[in-house]
Amino acid sequence: MNSTTNKHATRIALFAGSFDPFTRGHKDIVDRALATVADKVVIAIGINCQKKCMLTPEERAKAITAVYQDELRVSIHTYTGLTTDYAQQIGADFLLRGVRSIKDFEYERDIADVNRQLTGIETIIIFSDPTLASVSSSIVRELISYNKDVTKYLP
Amino acid sequence: MNSTTNKHATRIALFAGSFDPFTRGHKDIVDRALATVADKVVIAIGINCQKKCMLTPEERAKAITAVYQDELRVSIHTYTGLTTDYAQQIGADFLLRGVRSIKDFEYERDIADVNRQLTGIETIIIFSDPTLASVSSSIVRELISYNKDVTKYLP
Amino acid sequence: MNSTTNKHATRIALFAGSFDPFTRGHKDIVDRALATVADKVVIAIGINCQKKCMLTPEERAKAITAVYQDELRVSIHTYTGLTTDYAQQIGADFLLRGVRSIKDFEYERDIADVNRQLTGIETIIIFSDPTLASVSSSIVRELISYNKDVTKYLP
Amino acid sequence: MNSTTNKHATRIALFAGSFDPFTRGHKDIVDRALATVADKVVIAIGINCQKKCMLTPEERAKAITAVYQDELRVSIHTYTGLTTDYAQQIGADFLLRGVRSIKDFEYERDIADVNRQLTGIETIIIFSDPTLASVSSSIVRELISYNKDVTKYLP
Amino acid sequence: MNSTTNKHATRIALFAGSFDPFTRGHKDIVDRALATVADKVVIAIGINCQKKCMLTPEERAKAITAVYQDELRVSIHTYTGLTTDYAQQIGADFLLRGVRSIKDFEYERDIADVNRQLTGIETIIIFSDPTLASVSSSIVRELISYNKDVTKYLP
Amino acid sequence: MNSTTNKHATRIALFAGSFDPFTRGHKDIVDRALATVADKVVIAIGINCQKKCMLTPEERAKAITAVYQDELRVSIHTYTGLTTDYAQQIGADFLLRGVRSIKDFEYERDIADVNRQLTGIETIIIFSDPTLASVSSSIVRELISYNKDVTKYLP
Repeated sequence: MNSTTNKHATRIALFAGSFDPFTRGHKDIVDRALATVADKVVIAIGINCQKKCMLTPEERAKAITAVYQDELRVSIHTYTGLTTDYAQQIGADFLLRGVRSIKDFEYERDIADVNRQLTGIETIIIFSDPTLASVSSSIVRELISYNKDVTKYLP
Repeated sequence: MNSTTNKHATRIALFAGSFDPFTRGHKDIVDRALATVADKVVIAIGINCQKKCMLTPEERAKAITAVYQDELRVSIHTYTGLTTDYAQQIGADFLLRGVRSIKDFEYERDIADVNRQLTGIETIIIFSDPTLASVSSSIVRELISYNKDVTKYLP
Repeated sequence: MNSTTNKHATRIALFAGSFDPFTRGHKDIVDRALATVADKVVIAIGINCQKKCMLTPEERAKAITAVYQDELRVSIHTYTGLTTDYAQQIGADFLLRGVRSIKDFEYERDIADVNRQLTGIETIIIFSDPTLASVSSSIVRELISYNKDVTKYLP
Repeated sequence: MNSTTNKHATRIALFAGSFDPFTRGHKDIVDRALATVADKVVIAIGINCQKKCMLTPEERAKAITAVYQDELRVSIHTYTGLTTDYAQQIGADFLLRGVRSIKDFEYERDIADVNRQLTGIETIIIFSDPTLASVSSSIVRELISYNKDVTKYLP
Repeated sequence: MNSTTNKHATRIALFAGSFDPFTRGHKDIVDRALATVADKVVIAIGINCQKKCMLTPEERAKAITAVYQDELRVSIHTYTGLTTDYAQQIGADFLLRGVRSIKDFEYERDIADVNRQLTGIETIIIFSDPTLASVSSSIVRELISYNKDVTKYLP
Repeated sequence: MNSTTNKHATRIALFAGSFDPFTRGHKDIVDRALATVADKVVIAIGINCQKKCMLTPEERAKAITAVYQDELRVSIHTYTGLTTDYAQQIGADFLLRGVRSIKDFEYERDIADVNRQLTGIETIIIFSDPTLASVSSSIVRELISYNKDVTKYLP
């Protein structure tokens, strides 16, 4: 049992995404992972997004850092390339994903299957909180484009 | 960090079900949880099933015990009552569930939401392996009723 | 326009179900229908349910009546037979249904299609509130069977 | 009861979309809403679509106007900005949407949830007629691009 | 090419089910299979249904036989046991199934996967006609139980 | 029976797509169709794709040709225009499609319905093999863009 216990003295979850912007829905997944399955969550901002982004990676990193300034178990990084490569690079124990809907479910399942086939890495799923499930970064961006107050959707 | 680290020195996942019978699909979820998010998995056999069962709780417990005889991180129990009550009783950190399909997804999401509302306990999801996703205990039972060889579906 | 306005001076929605028991989710649909599409909602308790019921039709009617004792726009009845027959009998303008999930969606769509084919009656759908979508009467019944406090799920 | 009856003497449904082009499926939803839940339907053509459109807003407005030239309960407008803002501006009682599929269902549910959170406005759903459910404006546009006869899909 | 052509001189599709009763939806699948992929369709009535049936197997066989009395490419049989065993017994080239909905899709996919794993037999799917997709044998039975005219749903 | 048998002496399935690239999932559908419902499969590469392609039509045709160099029952072509027009041009008996997911299911159902309405042509569905269902051409393209080894996904 010793080696097992040692191995998992620190369980690292990789939570990767665009986070353009980081919403309350994202924060909820991170917080619940810390309360259950992760000793540490690495929030990794993908910076090679081909979709046009609203915020620069630096702006996104800054906003997320502000959210977790007192939470030592969360670290924020940017990355390029495949998520599975980055996961291996940082020694992540698993990928963390929130699932809001059937559409999310099928999308995440396919990505998770391919990631396992490629590198053996597992994906752990947490159901989104129902009160947050309807909000995505893209809806928040659209509201911002119409000068709407989106503070209720941001952490 | 000390208290946090201590708290999670042993992360306990509760994997509850009828397991009538325990399939390779069930075993796959347990094994992958041990490799990622759990230091210990408690397999709990619900014995108040209203659906008619093929195997007695004792037969099911015996079969699962045989599977994990050399795995010290797994323990097998039977329980009655609500799963959330049993989870609190054994100090489980979270409920563990495998999800095979859209139908499973919606079913598990509703149960997980209610469980959180009742006791705060979280549910962690692992996608079933695609090669095992089509097999359920009920299909295995039906094959057995026709005297088919189901060893490929059992661990 | 006169005839049209007259015809719809009172729009009657028929909200039929088992209501065993009537939950906050049911109440939410009725209230939102009254705020938007219905002048009057007839809550009709089907009393020929083949599934074993927890409450008698009288108990259910009494509980729902208590909820709406000050709401003149809601009336509570029991009925037997096909819902479409009852709808014609009371002169309902449409059937009202809440939809919580994909499973509900497909079930309600099929019933609504057949009802239209049989009698021409339309079905109007309101999405369940996300905070109430995971709770069904059957989950409430199960919680009650374990002596759990379900007041948060009842109106 | 008086104030209630007065308030809803005219129930206004807002049916907003791109309508590029307006199909028989769209017309079916408007007609069925008029027969059940709406005294008046405002068809609102969004003119800030970022997707490239086949028809100009004027062409679309003209085509829809021709369909409803003898229907006094329907008015056709163009609008910019958020649909919820436009709904408030015209005093709409609710948003009207047709749902054809699971994909539509999840999309509309998320939009409806956010709209309620932003302004309190409700969304009322009608299931698409099965014979029209497979046709979307985008399929019609594609058929037109191949010089196919699409009159069967247009009102 | 000779052997291949010979082998498939007669392609036999097995269309198995309860057919309690055989609906227009069932007939539509058989007819479309004959027009595309099958030289012969064997309609096989499962007679070990555990659900209580409305019609006896003989009544069902008689009704289906009447439908296809002039169609030499269709034969009607009853069977017991696993469908895959019966398929091998009659030399079926594939199982034929209609799919009406997401729920059907997942159900049929799981059965098809298991059937392939057991015996290698393939399952060929035809989408139900949208105008027939909402009608199932169970809805027809319910309508009959209320003395409704169901001739429009029967072939 | 003679004319019928003659008509279907050679059943031609049209399997149309972008095939950018042609994956093991595509090959699996072709092979299983040949084993069950088709005497001949025409693989047709659509060359008017508006999405930017990784491979030229010639490169795709060459790769697929190499896969089937010893299979006389498969022919590879490129085409422009609507798939239904091409199907009529080559005398295809039906369109062949694989379905991997709910998302695929709804997409294919809508296209199949419209195709039937336009020309009467039928679409025959085969469920993707579970081990191949998570891989799409777009995922393969993304892996290639990161210089990953994708040979396991290619035939």
